Amino acid sequence: MANKTFINNDFLLESKAAQKLYFEYAEPMPIIDYHCHLPACDIAIDRIFENITDIWLGGDHYKWRAMRTCGIHEKYITGDASDEEKFQAWATVVPRLIRNPLYHWTHLELKRIFGIDQLLNPDTASNIYNRCNELLRQRDFSVRSILEKFKVEALCTTNYPAENLEHHKTIRDTQCKTIVLPCFRPDKFLDAHLPKEFNNLVNSLESLTGLSINSFEDFIESLWKRHQFFHRNGCRMSDYGIETAYSADWTIEDVNRAFVKARSGHPLEGEDLLKFRSAVLYELLLMDHKQGWVQQLHLGAMRNNNSRMMALLGPDSGYDSIGDFEQGRPLIQLLDKLDRSGHLGKTIIYCLNPRDNDLIASIIGCFQDSITPGKIQMGSAWWFNDHKDGMTKQIEALSSIGVLSTFVGMLTDSRSFLSYPRHEYFRRILCNILGRDMSNGELPNDYQLIGGIIQDICYFNAKNYFQLHEAYNAIV
Amino acid sequence: MANKTFINNDFLLESKAAQKLYFEYAEPMPIIDYHCHLPACDIAIDRIFENITDIWLGGDHYKWRAMRTCGIHEKYITGDASDEEKFQAWATVVPRLIRNPLYHWTHLELKRIFGIDQLLNPDTASNIYNRCNELLRQRDFSVRSILEKFKVEALCTTNYPAENLEHHKTIRDTQCKTIVLPCFRPDKFLDAHLPKEFNNLVNSLESLTGLSINSFEDFIESLWKRHQFFHRNGCRMSDYGIETAYSADWTIEDVNRAFVKARSGHPLEGEDLLKFRSAVLYELLLMDHKQGWVQQLHLGAMRNNNSRMMALLGPDSGYDSIGDFEQGRPLIQLLDKLDRSGHLGKTIIYCLNPRDNDLIASIIGCFQDSITPGKIQMGSAWWFNDHKDGMTKQIEALSSIGVLSTFVGMLTDSRSFLSYPRHEYFRRILCNILGRDMSNGELPNDYQLIGGIIQDICYFNAKNYFQLHEAYNAIV
Amino acid sequence: MANKTFINNDFLLESKAAQKLYFEYAEPMPIIDYHCHLPACDIAIDRIFENITDIWLGGDHYKWRAMRTCGIHEKYITGDASDEEKFQAWATVVPRLIRNPLYHWTHLELKRIFGIDQLLNPDTASNIYNRCNELLRQRDFSVRSILEKFKVEALCTTNYPAENLEHHKTIRDTQCKTIVLPCFRPDKFLDAHLPKEFNNLVNSLESLTGLSINSFEDFIESLWKRHQFFHRNGCRMSDYGIETAYSADWTIEDVNRAFVKARSGHPLEGEDLLKFRSAVLYELLLMDHKQGWVQQLHLGAMRNNNSRMMALLGPDSGYDSIGDFEQGRPLIQLLDKLDRSGHLGKTIIYCLNPRDNDLIASIIGCFQDSITPGKIQMGSAWWFNDHKDGMTKQIEALSSIGVLSTFVGMLTDSRSFLSYPRHEYFRRILCNILGRDMSNGELPNDYQLIGGIIQDICYFNAKNYFQLHEAYNAIV
Repeated sequence: MANKTFINNDFLLESKAAQKLYFEYAEPMPIIDYHCHLPACDIAIDRIFENITDIWLGGDHYKWRAMRTCGIHEKYITGDASDEEKFQAWATVVPRLIRNPLYHWTHLELKRIFGIDQLLNPDTASNIYNRCNELLRQRDFSVRSILEKFKVEALCTTNYPAENLEHHKTIRDTQCKTIVLPCFRPDKFLDAHLPKEFNNLVNSLESLTGLSINSFEDFIESLWKRHQFFHRNGCRMSDYGIETAYSADWTIEDVNRAFVKARSGHPLEGEDLLKFRSAVLYELLLMDHKQGWVQQLHLGAMRNNNSRMMALLGPDSGYDSIGDFEQGRPLIQLLDKLDRSGHLGKTIIYCLNPRDNDLIASIIGCFQDSITPGKIQMGSAWWFNDHKDGMTKQIEALSSIGVLSTFVGMLTDSRSFLSYPRHEYFRRILCNILGRDMSNGELPNDYQLIGGIIQDICYFNAKNYFQLHEAYNAIV
Repeated sequence: MANKTFINNDFLLESKAAQKLYFEYAEPMPIIDYHCHLPACDIAIDRIFENITDIWLGGDHYKWRAMRTCGIHEKYITGDASDEEKFQAWATVVPRLIRNPLYHWTHLELKRIFGIDQLLNPDTASNIYNRCNELLRQRDFSVRSILEKFKVEALCTTNYPAENLEHHKTIRDTQCKTIVLPCFRPDKFLDAHLPKEFNNLVNSLESLTGLSINSFEDFIESLWKRHQFFHRNGCRMSDYGIETAYSADWTIEDVNRAFVKARSGHPLEGEDLLKFRSAVLYELLLMDHKQGWVQQLHLGAMRNNNSRMMALLGPDSGYDSIGDFEQGRPLIQLLDKLDRSGHLGKTIIYCLNPRDNDLIASIIGCFQDSITPGKIQMGSAWWFNDHKDGMTKQIEALSSIGVLSTFVGMLTDSRSFLSYPRHEYFRRILCNILGRDMSNGELPNDYQLIGGIIQDICYFNAKNYFQLHEAYNAIV
Repeated sequence: MANKTFINNDFLLESKAAQKLYFEYAEPMPIIDYHCHLPACDIAIDRIFENITDIWLGGDHYKWRAMRTCGIHEKYITGDASDEEKFQAWATVVPRLIRNPLYHWTHLELKRIFGIDQLLNPDTASNIYNRCNELLRQRDFSVRSILEKFKVEALCTTNYPAENLEHHKTIRDTQCKTIVLPCFRPDKFLDAHLPKEFNNLVNSLESLTGLSINSFEDFIESLWKRHQFFHRNGCRMSDYGIETAYSADWTIEDVNRAFVKARSGHPLEGEDLLKFRSAVLYELLLMDHKQGWVQQLHLGAMRNNNSRMMALLGPDSGYDSIGDFEQGRPLIQLLDKLDRSGHLGKTIIYCLNPRDNDLIASIIGCFQDSITPGKIQMGSAWWFNDHKDGMTKQIEALSSIGVLSTFVGMLTDSRSFLSYPRHEYFRRILCNILGRDMSNGELPNDYQLIGGIIQDICYFNAKNYFQLHEAYNAIV
């Protein structure tokens, strides 16, 4: 009847069955972190971090938002306060974050990475700061050491088409035990409503490819060159962060006219923009199919909502939100158009608004191909949904409407090397759900069956679906 | 602490109160299956099935989708593989379907109908296949025997306006113990964007009614003749599968012009189509009201999303999904328009997107009439929502925002005679929810009150609301 | 294993931790009921109610809807039946309302206010009716006595701009122990699609302010005068009941033209209406910011859906519903526009459709200012969501995506003085959620931390956020 210890051994595992499933089946599995935002350069040099602020608060806009909500001045968030001051500020906020996933992640990371069992708060901040920094400076806290510690067998970084992927090469050349492959993220090339940024990107394509880009066809040709370059470097995955699945009809005249307009510095708007985006997206997805890649659609974010702070800090600073767009019809149109002509490849659909979980789970079922198990995937609970309640809802929707056992499972989506306990978090939640069903008589008492499916979701499905080892071995 | 046996006696009943409510109140109730897709011809001839594939997999697009997702070739789904091969293919998939309702339904049906306690998988498939087939060939596994076994007192099939309802007559003439009535489903007559199919339907109306249909008025007149024909055959229920509750304003000139256009082979689009649909729907609902029928609005499906497979297999093959349409405003406009002129009859509103549960539960409360308890109903968890989580959410929304005790309860919506355990499934979930509240002190310890409401939801509300016995007795 | 007694001492508190949190931390806290619809006149005269029908059923459209759904004739709801007949009618309905919050509220109110432990039903109705009436006529059941009994330290009524706030003055002059302040609700001035009502309102503004209102500027000027008048009377809060956050762009010419059109009796429609509404809303929010008020946006209701009953009974009679509007983009545009120019004040956003909980929780995080903790709030579960399931969902969304500890907590939103047990209801639910987490090891075993946050949510956050004591003391 007494309360359990916080983050005890059986954390989130509320039945004997859940505990057995986690410790005997899930926990031993390696990690394939098929989508993250880790900087390849840090892995290339096997970076050792100066201090915990650097690795923990430096790029984490989840934490920044929480700090702003608690009234912490921007100076201590993205400003010029010292690293120690920033850590202290964060420590004052942490106790206020109970029930937010940051509260669990923070203490799970302190525990799993640094062996620290204390709660972070203003009283413990100095002690924890010093202890972490001391450890971080040791060789076995280098980024590669951390990746090994968490059994990260393979990971995919997120890369823009213009990147030269030199760091990935260095990583390969220096016997990193983790396979590190790029993921091709060309969605900025859809944003022809921002002609300045768009033309800078196109100019960079010109330099990189040596092509003179004067038409839509040239434009696509140059993207295809980059796509091939990424492929040669082991990339087998693309990523599109888009509001909805743009799928308007267009003609080549439409998009050529639109391209020339944008290229001459005029923003595209309304129908023109939609057609242009639809065309570029479609052409890119054709490339993905041609090369046998997995394409990821990250749908439904509204970005840079605070224009004052956008001007000060730029994008990805904690001012994005969930959007409430119509998702169904455009997504179906896009998938159907690709499928009709035989060009629909493996696709993962993430939708940021959890109200659309059931929608997505039902749509993917319309485009499975009777060959590849789980060819069209409903993505793991993403970003604002990356917490116990959000993961549970995603698992429930996929279970009830789709086929959970084909799920490729968790990814960190993180910018920080300390985020790997998120896989543990996901696995505990998954085991808890299935364990509860087993103890209730809602699933059979068959650990081989249920444990096996858990291992599939934690590791084997991703291994088979992404084929990252094969991609790595094929690099010329 | 040990796990409970899978689908044990107390399956889904997690408290003593839930068990008492189920076994003493819910379980003894007969079934009124007021909406299903059973073929009346099978009941007319009291069909005996050749084998389990026939009755179980023949028309079940839920199972087909699951098989496709698991990578089973279409040959073994809708193709020319033998019945035994198809069953074997299904058996390989079943273990992968844990947490999908198919997993529970499959084993519940094996258990309740065939007395089979084994889990279906490749090892047990042959044995189960043979055992089921052996039983199915016995007289007491005929469709009428199954209906009797499950105490199905009455059921309503789903019928197109052109049907002659001869099988229903045969059923009546051959002393079937289950009352079998038709339900009028005229929604295809709204689809004037498909002129070929539309004109075929109108032509068939001409033949059947002997009317020459040259105007919107003629068209409505001919539908009214079929409506009356159905009424004479005991029909007291209509059904409309529509994306949203079409409720644009129109003039008779608008819809006459639109009708003539469609009749001359041109597809209606945009505003024209919406007005036409709004007019036809409204006229049909007026007929329903005139005859005192219950009308069902099935809102929110997106159908035939995969055009490649639509061309191969036609509709209802497992390529539909949930839609994310705006539902509130059109639905309110439609109900208000009918209510304002005194023509709003009993209505059941099903919405396929569970994100709209609360919306629907709140809208029905605006059109109750202070006479008929639960006149406007929120329909049972439908199709993609027909699982534990979906039923629970529907019951929660209706409880919290509407009046659960007036609910007319469960239906199978099924094409298979083996689906009757779905009523048991629903009843157990319902009893579990109310039993939990009783054991928690959130409901009074009054079994007469709570058990009585459960019996209302399982049987008496439907009996009073649909008046199927009265309809049956009134057939001339 | 036996069922717990209905509404026992540990009602809704399912763990020892929850019980400790409730009884030691939440329960002792006073109430700041910062948003309600109580009539100030009743407090001014310290009204004693004639009978329970009067105080309980007189203005409660939640109950009216439930009665209509159960088939009770309008005569016994809003009609000319006697008060005792109406109470009897209500008593027949109550047992049918299990699982609706009305069932809990009804019995919680009988218990906490009248000490009555019986279930209300037709058998107990007379007895309960007489007992309540007997008590109500006693001085210690006057409205001020009730407010004191529930430790209501401060409350805010809801007032139209034309109100003279005389009752609030009387309340202050007669040493009421509860601080009673007005809240400014000017949203009817946005409704220029109803020219008759709109012009009546503008005419009343002319009389009150002595201004001649011939232009949009005059109109805003006159609203500003009322805003100032409210401020002088201690008002620090505004309220806008709107479908969405109107935020179209407009020019002064646009809105002047629109104003003149509406003023001359022509309804505004479409773009004109939207621009006008956007302009008026924006100008009012500027006033709120200038005076340091808290603004409340109540988004997402569809009102007066039943036009037949609207004609008979007028608004607020139980014919409203949840709406399914697009909320994200307009809300972000509005908040961003205010923030950009430095005019975004404290804001509480309530959205009636619970499917938008996550959307709202993520949007508020984009406009926090690093100064005021929880400056932009996600409002408490509102109206149709004001039940266990709805509160739980709101708390889950705010916890997972925002910062729960900054939440200003519960309000009654009620027209009845008997509704104060709703705060108890909320507090028990809140403590149950946090207590469950503590017993599970999902929160630390630190009652000071968790109990402190509960006290913040129940009382201190509202006290600091609204500063009602300061406002009261500043009244000249």
